[in-house]
Amino acid sequence: MRFTSFETNGQATYGTVTEAGLYRPVPADFQTRYTDLKAAIAAQVLREAAEATLSTGVVLSADQVRLLPVIPNPGKLICVGLNYKSHVAETKRADSDYPSLFLRFNDSLAAQGDAVLRPAFSERFDWEGELAFVIGTGGRHIAKEAAFDHIAGYACFNDVSVRDWQRHTHQFTPGKNFPGTAPFGPVLVTTDEVSDVTTLTLETRVNGQVMQHASLGDLIFDIPTIVAYVSRFTPLSPGDVIATGTPGGVGDRREPPLYMKDGDVVEVEITGLGVLRNTIATDHSAA
Amino acid sequence: MRFTSFETNGQATYGTVTEAGLYRPVPADFQTRYTDLKAAIAAQVLREAAEATLSTGVVLSADQVRLLPVIPNPGKLICVGLNYKSHVAETKRADSDYPSLFLRFNDSLAAQGDAVLRPAFSERFDWEGELAFVIGTGGRHIAKEAAFDHIAGYACFNDVSVRDWQRHTHQFTPGKNFPGTAPFGPVLVTTDEVSDVTTLTLETRVNGQVMQHASLGDLIFDIPTIVAYVSRFTPLSPGDVIATGTPGGVGDRREPPLYMKDGDVVEVEITGLGVLRNTIATDHSAA
Repeated sequence: MRFTSFETNGQATYGTVTEAGLYRPVPADFQTRYTDLKAAIAAQVLREAAEATLSTGVVLSADQVRLLPVIPNPGKLICVGLNYKSHVAETKRADSDYPSLFLRFNDSLAAQGDAVLRPAFSERFDWEGELAFVIGTGGRHIAKEAAFDHIAGYACFNDVSVRDWQRHTHQFTPGKNFPGTAPFGPVLVTTDEVSDVTTLTLETRVNGQVMQHASLGDLIFDIPTIVAYVSRFTPLSPGDVIATGTPGGVGDRREPPLYMKDGDVVEVEITGLGVLRNTIATDHSAA
Repeated sequence: MRFTSFETNGQATYGTVTEAGLYRPVPADFQTRYTDLKAAIAAQVLREAAEATLSTGVVLSADQVRLLPVIPNPGKLICVGLNYKSHVAETKRADSDYPSLFLRFNDSLAAQGDAVLRPAFSERFDWEGELAFVIGTGGRHIAKEAAFDHIAGYACFNDVSVRDWQRHTHQFTPGKNFPGTAPFGPVLVTTDEVSDVTTLTLETRVNGQVMQHASLGDLIFDIPTIVAYVSRFTPLSPGDVIATGTPGGVGDRREPPLYMKDGDVVEVEITGLGVLRNTIATDHSAA
């Protein structure tokens, strides 16, 4: 099943996305019981949600909805850094025995199609194509062997980074938290449609040029390891989002470096999860 | 005015705290309009809230309430690291031109009096007494000169850290996010009662022994600088919490190191903000 969150007639809702890119919202009475996609995940009623969308016959075209991040309101939004050998190598960092983790605020998320805003005071605006997964069943101290039982689904994620602000200190927080810099979509694909996540291919393109191309099988810390490690220090809940890290090929480590600028189109595509496409614009709110 | 959040009869509410340590909850109709302390801050009705608590005559003793973190649900919970020269020196880190920032999840907060749980699999459980401030009026790109106009009040904060997990990688996230490891209280003291925050003294004691003692005037990045820097990359909203960092004297940098263990009593006291007192216990939920 393929879900996303969106607004229609000014109301936030959620529903399924057809192969043709049309949107079927859940009926109003369903949404009364399960307010948002996170609530439907928590109640384990995604199948019922998908069936309910068919009962109304309502089908919306792209111009009738304003897309939201797949999950606009995760309780926890966790990003793994340095999780492909190709990216660790280009950053010239040492290998680590543990996943490197940083956090994002929810207001740093963006939707499919949103303009992603580069702050006018930084030229170092960089892409990071990633696979994100969404927790379906919460838990603490989750065993690696049980990890996939706790995952609701997968989506593309672009961990767009303001490199100079990321490196102001050793903590990445500022450069990873500018508003609307993490596109997350276009759809959440439920786990039943992804038989083996390690066989998926991730590709990031800027204006059509391939910048990153990797297999999800190349993760240094695979998804079970991430789930086990994270849930060792913090409880995970339905709707929590974990982005699994970006492969080599970021702009900042190219020679010469290459950054995104006004009008650039950045795409993250993962096998079966669709294409997450955004355009870069400049935020002139402060010089 | 002195506020905090608490439960009484199983219901979460908030109200004022008297000098004698008694609790005056806001009346039910007031809480209907302003659900929690964060909402009252956002609506700028703290004075009305304090007056409303007097109208009912209800006064609760400590055994009639279960205290919550002063603000249990901040939209953003931001911590500054390495913000006193005495602490930078003991960590042997270089000076920085920017504040080092990491984030905590809300479920890592704890209340005055809560048992703070050391995970059974770490011996390196350390205190970090800090001053935290709460945003009263939100904003982006806040000028240093205007910073104090955006602050609702102050409280003690203990940024208890699991040192080995903090140092698994360069990112502090895991060691700073074990559940219930950041006591925040006992009260929010509004800014009108703090004429000059730089004159306050912070002291951390473990079993009565003074471990940290510093002036808030010793912050490397003062509060206006923190507000200006943070609001440059992320919008701040009412109820957001920023902990300003800990001075020298943490247990991990002592020779020999000293960590907290079962039954230890840790106190953070700041002039005029009261004493934040917690007892250490062990979480045996996973060996």
